[in-house]
Amino acid sequence: MAKELKELTSRSDNYSQWYNDLVIKADLAENSAVRGCMVIKPYGYAIWEKIQAELDRMFKETGHVNAYFPMFIPKSFLSKEAEHVDGFAKECAVVTHHRLKNSPDGKGLIVDPDAKLEEELIVRPTSETIIWSTYKGWIQSYRDLPILCNQWANVVRWEMRTRLFLRTTEFLWQEGHTAHATEAEALEETKKMLEVYADFAERFMAVPVIKGVKTANERFAGALDTFCIEALMQDGKALQAGTSHFLGQNFAKAFDVTFMDKNNKLDHVWASSWGVSTRLIGALIMTHSDDNGLVLPPSLAPFQVVIVPIYKNEEQLALISEKVAEIVTKLKALGISVKFDNNDNKKPGWKFAEYELKGVPVRLAMGARDLENGTVEIARRDTLTKETVSLENIEIHINELLKEIQKNIFQKAFDHRASVTREVNSYDDFKVEIEKGGFLLCHWDGTPATEELIKEETKATIRCIPLEGDKTPGVCMVTGKPSVQRVVFARAY
Amino acid sequence: MAKELKELTSRSDNYSQWYNDLVIKADLAENSAVRGCMVIKPYGYAIWEKIQAELDRMFKETGHVNAYFPMFIPKSFLSKEAEHVDGFAKECAVVTHHRLKNSPDGKGLIVDPDAKLEEELIVRPTSETIIWSTYKGWIQSYRDLPILCNQWANVVRWEMRTRLFLRTTEFLWQEGHTAHATEAEALEETKKMLEVYADFAERFMAVPVIKGVKTANERFAGALDTFCIEALMQDGKALQAGTSHFLGQNFAKAFDVTFMDKNNKLDHVWASSWGVSTRLIGALIMTHSDDNGLVLPPSLAPFQVVIVPIYKNEEQLALISEKVAEIVTKLKALGISVKFDNNDNKKPGWKFAEYELKGVPVRLAMGARDLENGTVEIARRDTLTKETVSLENIEIHINELLKEIQKNIFQKAFDHRASVTREVNSYDDFKVEIEKGGFLLCHWDGTPATEELIKEETKATIRCIPLEGDKTPGVCMVTGKPSVQRVVFARAY
Repeated sequence: MAKELKELTSRSDNYSQWYNDLVIKADLAENSAVRGCMVIKPYGYAIWEKIQAELDRMFKETGHVNAYFPMFIPKSFLSKEAEHVDGFAKECAVVTHHRLKNSPDGKGLIVDPDAKLEEELIVRPTSETIIWSTYKGWIQSYRDLPILCNQWANVVRWEMRTRLFLRTTEFLWQEGHTAHATEAEALEETKKMLEVYADFAERFMAVPVIKGVKTANERFAGALDTFCIEALMQDGKALQAGTSHFLGQNFAKAFDVTFMDKNNKLDHVWASSWGVSTRLIGALIMTHSDDNGLVLPPSLAPFQVVIVPIYKNEEQLALISEKVAEIVTKLKALGISVKFDNNDNKKPGWKFAEYELKGVPVRLAMGARDLENGTVEIARRDTLTKETVSLENIEIHINELLKEIQKNIFQKAFDHRASVTREVNSYDDFKVEIEKGGFLLCHWDGTPATEELIKEETKATIRCIPLEGDKTPGVCMVTGKPSVQRVVFARAY
Repeated sequence: MAKELKELTSRSDNYSQWYNDLVIKADLAENSAVRGCMVIKPYGYAIWEKIQAELDRMFKETGHVNAYFPMFIPKSFLSKEAEHVDGFAKECAVVTHHRLKNSPDGKGLIVDPDAKLEEELIVRPTSETIIWSTYKGWIQSYRDLPILCNQWANVVRWEMRTRLFLRTTEFLWQEGHTAHATEAEALEETKKMLEVYADFAERFMAVPVIKGVKTANERFAGALDTFCIEALMQDGKALQAGTSHFLGQNFAKAFDVTFMDKNNKLDHVWASSWGVSTRLIGALIMTHSDDNGLVLPPSLAPFQVVIVPIYKNEEQLALISEKVAEIVTKLKALGISVKFDNNDNKKPGWKFAEYELKGVPVRLAMGARDLENGTVEIARRDTLTKETVSLENIEIHINELLKEIQKNIFQKAFDHRASVTREVNSYDDFKVEIEKGGFLLCHWDGTPATEELIKEETKATIRCIPLEGDKTPGVCMVTGKPSVQRVVFARAY
């Protein structure tokens, strides 16, 4: 791609601009001709494919299967669950007609008024309604349960302000929709998937997360409880990285899905739903990257190692290529993905900057002197350090290094989060501290009114009521009323 | 799922009903609440995942990368390529508004008239236009070429008459869109992907195909040439299983995509596009299945082997399970997917019928006598034959058997096709023969008028001008005018 390697805006200058610059310059995504919709470019999509592959494996290991449900939802379906309609039947893409025809004036196409749909269709903002209308036909008895389906799909929410990956009108995601015979089972499933998400975020994305429950204000429209994982970005703002909803019997009631239980008693089915989206790529970028570009966790990097030859003539290149081929074979045998960039149009310096920008975890450079000495130069993207090492057992060294990088960037993110997470006990302090960003652990009286007041006055929201950690009761920092435990406040994406 | 194992309609009674019954009863897919859109159920989707995995690997091995482009296309984009607009700007889903609101009468939701889009958006029926509008920003010089992108996506074509998998309003597919510096390269790519499709159809789906070129009448709207693979179903009707289009510079011209060539001369970019869809599952079903249910090729079966225990008590089941565990381990070590169905709610006879219906290639049954004798009963789905074999080297036996089944069902389909493919030399004979179904190889004068006449009078279309085989010239069976080679006629899905 023709593209100048201009400097990124630095994070300290303008974090938001840095993010936008980086997404574009690292060839991850770009805005499209359609307002709010993005084009996910091959390098960005390759990260999504890695995310998909790992999550899909984890879903299947926990007993789930994939399926596919229609992208269109009849308008009337959205009204069936009372709370769901308020949450999702607002800004959405509405299909009203099914035909275009040539304009009588010969100037292009017009919507054919004769092709108006009897009932408008909504492009799914989430699929609970169409899926539960389908499950009604699948479930008669407890023997048909549980149903543990996931789908990988595109969804549309007509957002007013969009940002690449973080908030786009169309985005890609997975949505799990499960049906159970008992409340306990559905709740267990909801929590199990929260654990899967947390495990994925921490082990693969190297993003530390807080597991918690949303307050009523922040709950998914139609859920009895929304569990979430919350991550902290480098600018001190929070990002919700995944949610798992306990839906109770709400959707079963809305779509009249009942089953005969073991005692021959008819009951409504219990449900969960859970999802993560291409937003995770935004989280990945904002957690690890620096002023030189992306820093990708080895577990999700499209390629983990890049090898750049440094040569004066064809003969040298041939010798280096021969040696590189050996290294590549050894790395691949260990399951390490590697790219040998012998492109003759670009200079090594250009390549170094390019792969730094693209966040390739490990870069090898091999020149004439390395050939002589049986060595190679290894550069780490996370620390930007270099060392020259012997080619002997190089694959083992690199394998260890990749593990170390994965661990190191997690630790760095963990330490950063720790450094900006603190307990705050008075609302006056809160107003000062929230300006500095980070997670604030505070007592809250549990009422939507107090939460709303804090949000209005400080733009901070309760990210979650954490499941783990300190559970000591206290008094609300605003009202002085009793609080059962501290909750996590932050400003959020 | 609660479902009675009723008999399928037989193929000879009503082929079309047999197909519909089979798709539903084998739990592959069902119609949804949205007209013309299907729900792909887990068992059907598992086949699609196998298809995706193999094709995706083949695409990557031939140098392609995945990306994702918006599902919405601005209405005006469709008008930019003169022929494309006639082909695709007709029956489509048109998004006209971006908001719903509560009806003033309190009776549900209405479209908010204040949220009318300035320009309507079309849900992609295919993505040439949105992708070429994007490529404009990616391409300046020959150094930016080729671009070899594929996307896995859903598309919508507002079909009047739909059938599960074969023709649905929304379907899943992949679409490759490539950009090249020269005509020769674009044409080479078009043909390369045709070979990939043919290879996939024959090796994995076990469906023999004819590779050919479409006539002008049947060409993709906007292409200079459409290459295709054509398969023959058991009822003697043809099914187009994949297409690869040479687009020339049509879309580059429509979206003004130029590049500086090696001689510093500005030229329009050359293009190809190619796709296969969930229709392939329809082809798979109709090529191999029988009156007992699905027959799946081992290469694409969600699981290749099922093991059913036959026991009188828990003790027997425990002993059988122990033995089965050993077999499972050995099979998995060879990469063979296997399911042990120890479900206590269903009798062995029910399970046998169920897995026959679902087309599992190999079924093992193990009872008390097998335990004593160190044997197992093996049933082949393709031939419905059974044999009792020793457990010694059972995994090697099964591995060979799976290969043999794959080969056998291909050969069976190949022989069937051969038996109903014949040369026809007079139009009178043609009118008789076309009623019997199959591929008819005939001379045609190369004019759209003659082709159209034949279609009107006989409902047969030219499936393709085959690339391989007999190229002897002759005279058109209708007009007596010269013909350069025989073409393939059939009635088609």
